[in-house]
Amino acid sequence: MGYGNIGRAAEQAVKSAPDMELAGVFHHNDCLDCMDADVVLLCTPTREVPKFAAVMLAKGICTVDSFDIHGQIAGLRSQLTPLCVTNKTVSVLSAGWDPGSDSVVRALLMAMAPKGITYTNFGPGRSMGHSVAAKSIDGVKNALSMTIPLGTGVHRRMVYIELEDGADFKTVEAAILADDYFAHDETHVIPVESVDALNNVAHGVNLVRSGVSGETHNQRFEFNMEINNPALTGQVMVSCARAAVRMRDRGEYGAKTMIEIRPIDLLPGDEESLVKALV
Amino acid sequence: MGYGNIGRAAEQAVKSAPDMELAGVFHHNDCLDCMDADVVLLCTPTREVPKFAAVMLAKGICTVDSFDIHGQIAGLRSQLTPLCVTNKTVSVLSAGWDPGSDSVVRALLMAMAPKGITYTNFGPGRSMGHSVAAKSIDGVKNALSMTIPLGTGVHRRMVYIELEDGADFKTVEAAILADDYFAHDETHVIPVESVDALNNVAHGVNLVRSGVSGETHNQRFEFNMEINNPALTGQVMVSCARAAVRMRDRGEYGAKTMIEIRPIDLLPGDEESLVKALV
Repeated sequence: MGYGNIGRAAEQAVKSAPDMELAGVFHHNDCLDCMDADVVLLCTPTREVPKFAAVMLAKGICTVDSFDIHGQIAGLRSQLTPLCVTNKTVSVLSAGWDPGSDSVVRALLMAMAPKGITYTNFGPGRSMGHSVAAKSIDGVKNALSMTIPLGTGVHRRMVYIELEDGADFKTVEAAILADDYFAHDETHVIPVESVDALNNVAHGVNLVRSGVSGETHNQRFEFNMEINNPALTGQVMVSCARAAVRMRDRGEYGAKTMIEIRPIDLLPGDEESLVKALV
Repeated sequence: MGYGNIGRAAEQAVKSAPDMELAGVFHHNDCLDCMDADVVLLCTPTREVPKFAAVMLAKGICTVDSFDIHGQIAGLRSQLTPLCVTNKTVSVLSAGWDPGSDSVVRALLMAMAPKGITYTNFGPGRSMGHSVAAKSIDGVKNALSMTIPLGTGVHRRMVYIELEDGADFKTVEAAILADDYFAHDETHVIPVESVDALNNVAHGVNLVRSGVSGETHNQRFEFNMEINNPALTGQVMVSCARAAVRMRDRGEYGAKTMIEIRPIDLLPGDEESLVKALV
């Protein structure tokens, strides 16, 4: 459901999967054809996920979304779980890279060194939220806000803007710097002729933990990635679709985040072969 | 069970866990006192794990081991699963860092980019197997073999040896280089006055994957750690002990590797709080 960047990437991941068949692609308002599907991937804007998930779950169809408002995930999980249980189905929430695979890494590192601090450093990469916020400022025709990691979870914002005819750069810059999205971070506003010419779906993460295993300090861990953002999100959603069906088939109904999924369930193939190949 | 490096580290991890009680520490031949325990951590030499696991599982007690012979893990899993099912218990196999947490990272990266190559580079750190092999050569009083990562899963062996009185270094060096443990890797043999003076339980991993998400190539991932080896192994075993009891209580009986454990089950606390904190 939905055919933007993520929907297209998910389509490619489904077609590349050895154990899946694409039942169909459809728009928000037309889900009549999905009735035979095991899973619907909700590739809609995040804010529409709760509504469409409820519709699909009520039909007994599993769902996977990449709902990314961190503070609302636990609430959505509580809201959808009874619906999953009643309809004997599974909804995988926040299947992407953060929230998503980064969440799994954070959980694993916590199990390896229970005391300590994990820093998740994002970027370099485009922040959709910040780009939209900058674009909404008076005098801005188009905007791209890049997130630059400075370490220990602190980020710089590089905001590239195309001005509307007659707009004054200094006035626009001041408005962006005063906006709540930017006021708390080091922010640089840079006028450019074409924002589109800079556009790039690359993104990255540098996730660092120094912690304590038992009574032993200075256990150091780091996870890095440099990726095409929608391609990874679509792929993770598809891997989670596989897990959703397996959990449903075992009767493990409910709304699940990725830290509630056995890693082996994300992968095609039989368990013994996967244990041999990966453990 | 067992009180070497790993047993001592596991004891510290149990005592640091907010939700555990240490029922007792005992030697291989005296397990009468463990009858009230939920879980026994098998901190014995790897080759003794299958035998002791079978004894404990037959009593209905969960076990956790760090069995590390990669090629025999799937076989041990098949062997212990029926015993677990019959006795309604759970055995977590190969709970350490490799096999163990590295296996989880490998599985996760495979789900994120199904096509590609993962390289696991070990070290710098001591290889027990190679150290024992070098020590068994005629003329060697004591030996330490360090594993040095050269990338793409290729390793150098730095072998520090203490010679026995009257032994000829060149003869000993030739014997080590010809040994099957060393013949396939770049190996340097270095005579030292005291192997004990070099001893250090530090170890490391650099795990790299470049792969394809859907149809998008050049997705790059890296996991690094620099750790105290027994401290991490003991901690991972203890986190897996928690998961073992939870799986047992849900009726998910069987022998499980870490890729068959939900990450959330490794952590203390209630699920909703963990979802809020980590996802």
